[in-house]
Amino acid sequence: MRINPERLIADLRRLAEFGKAGTGVDRTSYSAHDIASREWLVGRMREAGLDAAIDAVGNARGVTREANRAVVIGSHTDSVPKGGWLDGAMGVIYGLEIARARREAGRAAKLGVDVVSFQDEEGTYLPCLGSRAFCSDLPAAELAAAKSQSGETLAGAIARVGYGGARWERDPRRHVAYLEAHIEQGPRLETEHKRIGVVTGIVGIRRFRITAAGQADHAGTTPIAMRKDAARGLYELAHRVHREFPALASADTVWNVGVMNVRPGAANVVPAAADMVVEFRDTASAVLDRIEAELTGWVAALDGKAGVKISAAPIARILPTLMDDRLADLIDAVAAAHAAPAMRMPSGAGHDAMIVGRVMPAGMLFIPSIGGRSHDIVEDTDEADIVLGCELLADVVERLETS
Amino acid sequence: MRINPERLIADLRRLAEFGKAGTGVDRTSYSAHDIASREWLVGRMREAGLDAAIDAVGNARGVTREANRAVVIGSHTDSVPKGGWLDGAMGVIYGLEIARARREAGRAAKLGVDVVSFQDEEGTYLPCLGSRAFCSDLPAAELAAAKSQSGETLAGAIARVGYGGARWERDPRRHVAYLEAHIEQGPRLETEHKRIGVVTGIVGIRRFRITAAGQADHAGTTPIAMRKDAARGLYELAHRVHREFPALASADTVWNVGVMNVRPGAANVVPAAADMVVEFRDTASAVLDRIEAELTGWVAALDGKAGVKISAAPIARILPTLMDDRLADLIDAVAAAHAAPAMRMPSGAGHDAMIVGRVMPAGMLFIPSIGGRSHDIVEDTDEADIVLGCELLADVVERLETS
Repeated sequence: MRINPERLIADLRRLAEFGKAGTGVDRTSYSAHDIASREWLVGRMREAGLDAAIDAVGNARGVTREANRAVVIGSHTDSVPKGGWLDGAMGVIYGLEIARARREAGRAAKLGVDVVSFQDEEGTYLPCLGSRAFCSDLPAAELAAAKSQSGETLAGAIARVGYGGARWERDPRRHVAYLEAHIEQGPRLETEHKRIGVVTGIVGIRRFRITAAGQADHAGTTPIAMRKDAARGLYELAHRVHREFPALASADTVWNVGVMNVRPGAANVVPAAADMVVEFRDTASAVLDRIEAELTGWVAALDGKAGVKISAAPIARILPTLMDDRLADLIDAVAAAHAAPAMRMPSGAGHDAMIVGRVMPAGMLFIPSIGGRSHDIVEDTDEADIVLGCELLADVVERLETS
Repeated sequence: MRINPERLIADLRRLAEFGKAGTGVDRTSYSAHDIASREWLVGRMREAGLDAAIDAVGNARGVTREANRAVVIGSHTDSVPKGGWLDGAMGVIYGLEIARARREAGRAAKLGVDVVSFQDEEGTYLPCLGSRAFCSDLPAAELAAAKSQSGETLAGAIARVGYGGARWERDPRRHVAYLEAHIEQGPRLETEHKRIGVVTGIVGIRRFRITAAGQADHAGTTPIAMRKDAARGLYELAHRVHREFPALASADTVWNVGVMNVRPGAANVVPAAADMVVEFRDTASAVLDRIEAELTGWVAALDGKAGVKISAAPIARILPTLMDDRLADLIDAVAAAHAAPAMRMPSGAGHDAMIVGRVMPAGMLFIPSIGGRSHDIVEDTDEADIVLGCELLADVVERLETS
């Protein structure tokens, strides 16, 4: 059984016409371009012989009728504003092509492929909305509260585009595994000259906002010892994060101090207030716990010094999700069989597999991002790598037939 | 010879009606309130027997006709937006009251008092414009380039309010000294329970903008070692300023890192660009030189590390101005005679005396600011301290008659 590389690339290029923005796409969830692309996708699924529809939240799925057991293959076709053409889209079109090729090869009944484009992975309204709906992990209160930055509620968006009917949800008797292919969105594969990454897990994310309250004073007339400088302690903390996290971290841990606000922000005024955001990511909760304990300890030790009140509040807390070992081994094996030895790595970004992997075995493979770039219209990947990733995933499904 | 405390306070209160903003004033230079207050002031000067007028840049001055030699006493009556009622205004009304009291006491001919409210000390258009004009230190190019934040040129403002004629400039044969009284604008006198500060000098200010250029990357997918984090080095520098400047500084040095901008400023994006402003102040150029050498050395050592370009550019450089020793001793002596022992201290803020002191002997005294507060409508000083300051300055002039 062989996939059709030309058809794969042609479908990807066609999909990139919806919301085309230079070399990328602007196809945020529930936008007109997103809706049109989903309708096109459902048409392509039907042409491939799948039972296709858009469900109550906007998930576009195509089910293999002939099979009682199926792997779910997918990702998302919504994008960030001015995003890349492959981010999410590639994993969905892989599913379409593999389902199509397997039907053509007469293998559909042996193990079905249910293809899905989950809605709003990028979180224009609610991150991973579609995969959460698929996993029945969507409390009504959260659904009701979701809205876009422009102020439209999620319920309003769904009503506007006219989606209805039932949600398409996981069927534990039918769905044996979830497979997602995605561009890496980072530089590791390219740097290591690898064409395939096997995702070991999707990192947990902890994010703290650290806030300091001091007092504005004239920076010329107020002696240093009499100041309540709100920024001083935060500069120390930010420096300490970068200096001391390496000793607390695993080889895969990443962290960032990407937000630092100092107010009033004048050269000659002692900072009255300041805040910063520290985030750190790892697949191991024990590592996250260790870092969190240190960081909050540092904050507690600074609190009250020189009259400045400093506190840390968690603002995001996403649990890590481990990918299924057996699926990871399978991806490794088919990569080796294609003479493209894979590299094991965590995913530092969130994906639908993070949600789905909590309720069923999930496997994820990465292909390289040129220059490590993503969430930008410059995002791209060599076509040969795109084709290789799809061939590998097709082989994984074939091996799952008999397992 | 005695000043009239009630008249002093009444004039101060009357002046505070112009641009009244709660307990403070909003009387930026060339505003309608500023113009009206200058016209009122010229009227009060004339009532006091002075030869009064507003000059070409807006300086309101009242000259003692009877005298060939005069001390100049003054400050400024323009304010920052929503500033205090005494900042600048007090030093001008001291001059008015002392000139008036000396004429009443028949001493005007012995040593005249030329009273002045310098225009735009606060720099709505050009900091210390009036005192610079008085000292003939105003290059035409700088004058032509000056404009307010709202975009009005200084020339436009002067034309709008209709000022004309000649500038009032220093007369080396007539003007023997410059005396300026001012609120401290800091907490030192109050903290030390002193009612009078003798200003030793006005600090020099050096201000550097430190700029870092890195690269935005996804903070989840880009390993720490592959990042070009523009903020990381600046956090280290800011921390180092606070940790190491004390060892480089004099007892009076102050510094501030009041500006820190990190872009794009998102929790999950590695900072692509960052900038911060470091300023430091001291009356001794040698101390400023030492700190500057260290700071620029730290920046040079960081430049290029981890692919981040870091550089420091001077954005302000104001020379320190020492006050005249003999005048400082005189202020000390009259303070002691009033049983109000004075405290010697630098001025951490700029004043017109900084400009005038470069071309003629200048003396400056401070009285306490309640809570150290200034540049805010809450700025205030005990009336008893206001009166004491004026009495002392009148005594200084009396002692200068015979010197």
